[in-house]
Amino acid sequence: MKLSEVIFTNQWPTERKLGSSLLFIIDEVLKNQVPEALLKSKHVYWVQSGETLKNIHLFPQHVENLVDLCKDLDLSALKVVAIGGGSVGDFAGFFASIYRRGVGLIHIPSTWLAAMDSAHGGKTALNLGLAKNQIGSFYSAEKVVLVKPLLLRQPSERLQDALGEALKMAIIDRKVFTRFSKMKIWNDKAAWSVLPEIIKAKYRVVQKDPFEKKGLRQTLNLGHTLGHIFEIQHRLSHGYSVLLGTLFALEMSEAFGFLKTSSRRQIEKLPLWPDHYFADLLKLMRRTTERESLLKMDKKSDSSIQIRFVFIAGPGKTIVKSVLQQRVFQFWDEMLS
Amino acid sequence: MKLSEVIFTNQWPTERKLGSSLLFIIDEVLKNQVPEALLKSKHVYWVQSGETLKNIHLFPQHVENLVDLCKDLDLSALKVVAIGGGSVGDFAGFFASIYRRGVGLIHIPSTWLAAMDSAHGGKTALNLGLAKNQIGSFYSAEKVVLVKPLLLRQPSERLQDALGEALKMAIIDRKVFTRFSKMKIWNDKAAWSVLPEIIKAKYRVVQKDPFEKKGLRQTLNLGHTLGHIFEIQHRLSHGYSVLLGTLFALEMSEAFGFLKTSSRRQIEKLPLWPDHYFADLLKLMRRTTERESLLKMDKKSDSSIQIRFVFIAGPGKTIVKSVLQQRVFQFWDEMLS
Repeated sequence: MKLSEVIFTNQWPTERKLGSSLLFIIDEVLKNQVPEALLKSKHVYWVQSGETLKNIHLFPQHVENLVDLCKDLDLSALKVVAIGGGSVGDFAGFFASIYRRGVGLIHIPSTWLAAMDSAHGGKTALNLGLAKNQIGSFYSAEKVVLVKPLLLRQPSERLQDALGEALKMAIIDRKVFTRFSKMKIWNDKAAWSVLPEIIKAKYRVVQKDPFEKKGLRQTLNLGHTLGHIFEIQHRLSHGYSVLLGTLFALEMSEAFGFLKTSSRRQIEKLPLWPDHYFADLLKLMRRTTERESLLKMDKKSDSSIQIRFVFIAGPGKTIVKSVLQQRVFQFWDEMLS
Repeated sequence: MKLSEVIFTNQWPTERKLGSSLLFIIDEVLKNQVPEALLKSKHVYWVQSGETLKNIHLFPQHVENLVDLCKDLDLSALKVVAIGGGSVGDFAGFFASIYRRGVGLIHIPSTWLAAMDSAHGGKTALNLGLAKNQIGSFYSAEKVVLVKPLLLRQPSERLQDALGEALKMAIIDRKVFTRFSKMKIWNDKAAWSVLPEIIKAKYRVVQKDPFEKKGLRQTLNLGHTLGHIFEIQHRLSHGYSVLLGTLFALEMSEAFGFLKTSSRRQIEKLPLWPDHYFADLLKLMRRTTERESLLKMDKKSDSSIQIRFVFIAGPGKTIVKSVLQQRVFQFWDEMLS
């Protein structure tokens, strides 16, 4: 898999710079944020972002609509340009990967979360009912264009949302950890300045195991196992859910003997780690009613009884192990008792 | 893209030899031809072969059913085993390529056409209405197992059907051409004996251009442009349609100056080339009413006016060129006048 070219820019790229035959897939909430020319273009497919966009049952009709929009474009040079957050990128990337067995793809992420994480590394996905990302492909964007004014105009909630993935990355990657150890404030400016480091860290992992065959890439799933349960059942944002999932992994890693107490303290000392999250975690764990069935739906479930769990072994160190789902829930119950 | 391991065998492989976690997708017409154990297995998805199986609108429900069948299998070791002809292979291959971003895939082709052609080279596909193979992926099978007793039990019509692709391959590849120059009879035995040569020739092309990016792999589309028109409009078999399409390409290549008359004669002298096909071609061309719209649907159409056409330059020599669709139809009309 080729890695994407990552471009940081202070202004929107011109259409001409992106390619000669472009089909845009854009989150409709960005209508007043994208360049005016796009509002008039007949090659724009406006979508409502969110998990419904990734529903496999709605996908065939989207494909019909998209192919119809392309009919006067040069298909041999076609590039799909996705402008939006994670769900738009997943959807547009999957379409690009299977239309004519793969056409060009460019991501212009509009959320911090997508800019840091989902736009990179070539994962595309659709959902099967509540089971997230069961269907998908590995398909890298040719380019990921990070447009500063677009990201800076996002609501600050989006920035908080991204903190979860950012802290996850700090735990996985030593260089990001060092950087985060010195960060006191999490705002637009801080996020934009640390963005290149976080992206590089992700590519370092992806490059070693692009198709997630060696277990290395799975380290990026840190915090996601429990995170997805919270995300689905309590309709929390992805980043916040991952943050809580990472906290759970921290607890479990120590309890299972993978993490020394001194290393755990080092990680907990990261200045951006918010206090109230531990109370939040316990509260949500108590309120979760369908954890078994939700965990089974997870793509990281190897079978009905085992799961691939990402443990934390220290700053910049993770270990992926198969564990019995039962043991995860035993620990869960112990935490609450 | 990894090439598949090709296995020729006189008997069915045991399940254990194929893998530890298998999901079978089998053409239901093969119920009395597959090993008895498969009839009792709960991990078999019986399908009706044909283009309807590849309808994108029916695909989400198939996915639901297939995922449900897998629920007690070890998903980390899952392999999809496709037993059937081209449509079953296209469908099962596409599913394998996108379930959990790709699971294992084994083809056991039941038709000569699939054994020679479609099971190799990793093309998977679904249809968008009448537009064939608009949706799909490049995804190689780990293994292609050619089971002699399975192929030999197919009706002889299937053998005639395969002759089109076989002759196409003889024109594309010099080694296959030499072999075909000496073949007088086309029967089961002949097809089984020439099968390894035809498959090797296909892999020689695929290896040079696995994702059809350099124009080389497109040479395998010889005869398919017109072939698909006949196949869809007159509901002819794929192989027969390709044979007629190849004959058209032969005419057009000479008329357009790519093929010397002496080379054309050499090709026409292949003993297996049947006489009446030229009359058939003209008859069908006369009866074709929607050629423009059918050609536009073809995946080889770059745009609404151009098409990538595979010309024949001599035995073992082809040239891919973009031509105006109008010029193809002009020539069509000249042939009929």
